[in-house]
Amino acid sequence: MEVITTGCITAPRGFKAGATYCGIKTAKDSLDLGIVFSEYPATGAALFTTNQIYAAPVKLSREIVQKGRVRAFIINSGNANACTGEQGYKDAEEMVRITAKCLNIPDDEILVASTGIIGRPLPMGKIAAGIKTAVTSLGNTPAHGNAMARAIMTTDTKQKDIAVRLKINNKDVTIGGITKGAGMIAPNLATMLCFLTTDVSMPASLLGECLRNSAETSFNRITIDGHMSTNDTIAIMANGASGVNIPLENNDLQAFRQGLDYVTNYLAKAIVMDGEGATKFIQIDVVGARSRHDATRIARSIADSPLVKTALNGEDPNWGRIVSAAGYAGVELDESKTTLYMNDILIFAKGMPTQCDLNTLSTSMKGRDINIRLELGLGEYKDTVWTCDLSHEYVTINAEYHT
Amino acid sequence: MEVITTGCITAPRGFKAGATYCGIKTAKDSLDLGIVFSEYPATGAALFTTNQIYAAPVKLSREIVQKGRVRAFIINSGNANACTGEQGYKDAEEMVRITAKCLNIPDDEILVASTGIIGRPLPMGKIAAGIKTAVTSLGNTPAHGNAMARAIMTTDTKQKDIAVRLKINNKDVTIGGITKGAGMIAPNLATMLCFLTTDVSMPASLLGECLRNSAETSFNRITIDGHMSTNDTIAIMANGASGVNIPLENNDLQAFRQGLDYVTNYLAKAIVMDGEGATKFIQIDVVGARSRHDATRIARSIADSPLVKTALNGEDPNWGRIVSAAGYAGVELDESKTTLYMNDILIFAKGMPTQCDLNTLSTSMKGRDINIRLELGLGEYKDTVWTCDLSHEYVTINAEYHT
Repeated sequence: MEVITTGCITAPRGFKAGATYCGIKTAKDSLDLGIVFSEYPATGAALFTTNQIYAAPVKLSREIVQKGRVRAFIINSGNANACTGEQGYKDAEEMVRITAKCLNIPDDEILVASTGIIGRPLPMGKIAAGIKTAVTSLGNTPAHGNAMARAIMTTDTKQKDIAVRLKINNKDVTIGGITKGAGMIAPNLATMLCFLTTDVSMPASLLGECLRNSAETSFNRITIDGHMSTNDTIAIMANGASGVNIPLENNDLQAFRQGLDYVTNYLAKAIVMDGEGATKFIQIDVVGARSRHDATRIARSIADSPLVKTALNGEDPNWGRIVSAAGYAGVELDESKTTLYMNDILIFAKGMPTQCDLNTLSTSMKGRDINIRLELGLGEYKDTVWTCDLSHEYVTINAEYHT
Repeated sequence: MEVITTGCITAPRGFKAGATYCGIKTAKDSLDLGIVFSEYPATGAALFTTNQIYAAPVKLSREIVQKGRVRAFIINSGNANACTGEQGYKDAEEMVRITAKCLNIPDDEILVASTGIIGRPLPMGKIAAGIKTAVTSLGNTPAHGNAMARAIMTTDTKQKDIAVRLKINNKDVTIGGITKGAGMIAPNLATMLCFLTTDVSMPASLLGECLRNSAETSFNRITIDGHMSTNDTIAIMANGASGVNIPLENNDLQAFRQGLDYVTNYLAKAIVMDGEGATKFIQIDVVGARSRHDATRIARSIADSPLVKTALNGEDPNWGRIVSAAGYAGVELDESKTTLYMNDILIFAKGMPTQCDLNTLSTSMKGRDINIRLELGLGEYKDTVWTCDLSHEYVTINAEYHT
C-alpha cells in the first residue's frame, strides 16, 4: 500500500477540486469555499452529527444522500449556516442549485457542508460568486487537492489530508481524504468535516456500511473537548474510474476496507494532534470492562475531564484525577480490582498506589505521546479513545474566536 | 433572620472548633487540620460523593453516620486519603480513634473527612500530633470559627462561611456552615466539603431529610468543571443547645428549613464564585422541558462545555456554542421551538437569530454575573445550574497543582 501525502482528495482518478476565497472569512489570504467534483457518475454515502441542533446543510445533505448518488461536494468555511432558521435551509438549497448549474449535474447529486460561526446568515452573494470561481478553477493537480484541504479549515493550524493506493485485481485503486477539526470534537463526530474520494465502483449501501465501520474505529474514537457540533459531516464518493468494481463482501472488499481504515485512522489522529492548543497526543485504553459500552464511557470520562487534560498539559503525574474521572463515568467499579499504567509505568495496582518513581513518570510525559491504560478487572471488553491536552492556548483561541 | 459572617461554624451554641498546621501542606503559614466539637450529645447526618472511587474517610464516615449520633468532625486538608487501599482505611480509623480519645467521646460519634492530593499515604505521625494540638486549642470565639473555615481550604482563595440566626418559639436558633470547593466541582457534589452546625434538637432521620432537600437546591445545582471528586462530604450536627426541639413536620421545621436553605445556597454560590480561576458567576436557567431531568441534563451540558466557558471568559457573545451544547445533552429538542436569552436580551427566537445588538450583549457580559435562559417550548419543567467560566488561571492552577 502506497501512501500519498499531497493532493490527496484528487489522487483517485476522475476527481477534480476547485477552491477559492470568496469573502466569508476576514483573512483575505485564506480560502473559504471549495468544490470536489467527480468527472463520472458516482455513488455516495455520508454520516452526520447526532446533535439535536443540526445545521441547515446537514439537514439538506441528509435528504440528498438517501438516493445514494453523489457527484460533488460544495463546502464553505467561516460560517456554519447553523441556527439560521428557514432562511438557512433555503441558502443551503441555493448553494446546491448554483453548484449544480455550474457543473451541469442534477441538484440531488450534490452534498453541501458548512463550518464556522453559528447563527449568522450566509453571505449568499459572495458565495454565489465563489461557486462560479471555484468551478472555473477545477483541476486534478496536487495543488488543486491541497487548496481544497485548506479551504475547509477554521482554527486548524495544519492542512490534514492523506491518500493510499493499493492493488485490487492488479489494478490501482486510490482512496483520498481531507478533514478539518480543531475545536468542538467529541463523541460521535464533532465540528469535524471529512471528505473522501475513491475510484472503485461500489453500491451506495455497501459504501455506507464501509464508511460507518471505518468511522467507528477512527472519528468516533476521538474527543477534543466533549463538545459535539451542529455540522459534523463525513462523506464519500466512489466513481469507478479505476475500473475496479466491488459489488459485495469478498477479499477485494477487505482490501478496500483496510485502505479506507488507514485513511480515516490517519485523519482522525491528525485532528487530535491539531486540536485547539494541543501539545500532547493522548491514547486512553480501558480494558477489563463488563461491556464495550462501559469501556467507552470510562475512556471518554477520562478524556473529557478538564482536570486530567490540564494535568497532562503540565506534564504532571497527577494520576488520582484519572482514577477519579473513571469513578464518575456512571459505570460500577471495584477500586480493589483497578490498575493504572501511564506510559507503561505501573502506578496503581489493584487499588494500591505503587512505589513507582514519579520523577521517571514525569520525565516520560515530556514527549508528545502519552498512553493511559486503565484495567478494571471486571470483564473482557475494552475500548480506546484518543484526545489531547487542555492548554492556555485553547483558552486563548476560544475566548477570542468570535469577535 | 440575622446573617452572621464571622466565626460561623461556632456561632450556634455549644460548638467549639480548633484548627492547626501539622505539616501536611508545605506552606507553613497555612492550616491543614481542624476539629469541630459539640459540647453536648448531638444528632448528625451526612451526604457523600456518588463517585465509584471514593476515599477512605468517605467509606468510614458513611458507616459511622448510620447510627445518627455525631459529636465531632475531624478534617484534614492537603491529602485526600483516596486511592490509598487498606492502609488508607486504617489511617482514617486511626484519625477517628485519636480524636475520640482526646475528646473523651465514643469512636462512633465522629465523622472524618480529607481533601487534597489523591494516592498518597497520610503522614499519620504529623496528623496524630495535629489532632492533639487542635483539641487543646478548641474554643468558640469567632477566631476559632474562622480558623476552622481556613483549615479545610485547598486551592480556594477565600474562606467560605456563613451563619443565620432565627427565632423559633421566641428562642434564638442558629445554623452555621463552612465549605471548601475550588476544583473538581460537578454533578451531585464534588471535591467539596461542607460542615454545618445547629443548636436545635432534631431526630437524625429528619435532620438527614432536611440536609438532602437543602443540598438538592444548592450544592447539587453547581458545577465548576464536570469532574466529580472522590471525597465530597456534607455533614451536619444538631445539639439542642438552643432549647428548641423540632421533632416533626410543622411550622418550626419550615422555619428551620428556610434557615438551612439560606446557608447552603450561600455556600454553594460561594464555591462557584471562588471556582479555580473563575471570573464570572453564570446562572443557567432551562425552562419548558418535558421533565426536570431533561432540564437538568441540558443545563449541565451547557455549564460543562469548555467552549461555552471559554467564550464567557472572553465576554464573547458566541451564543451558538450554548445552543449546540444543549443539542448534544441527549435530550430530544425542536430547534424551531428553542429560544435563548442572555442577560435578558433575546438572541434566538424559536429557531431564528434575532436582530439583537451583539455589542450591547457583549457590554452586558462585562459584569461578573451572566444569566443564560434557554426556553425549550416542550413542556412545563425547568431547572437551574450555577457555574463559572474557564480561564487561563484555571489551566495554570491545574497544570501545576501536583508538583
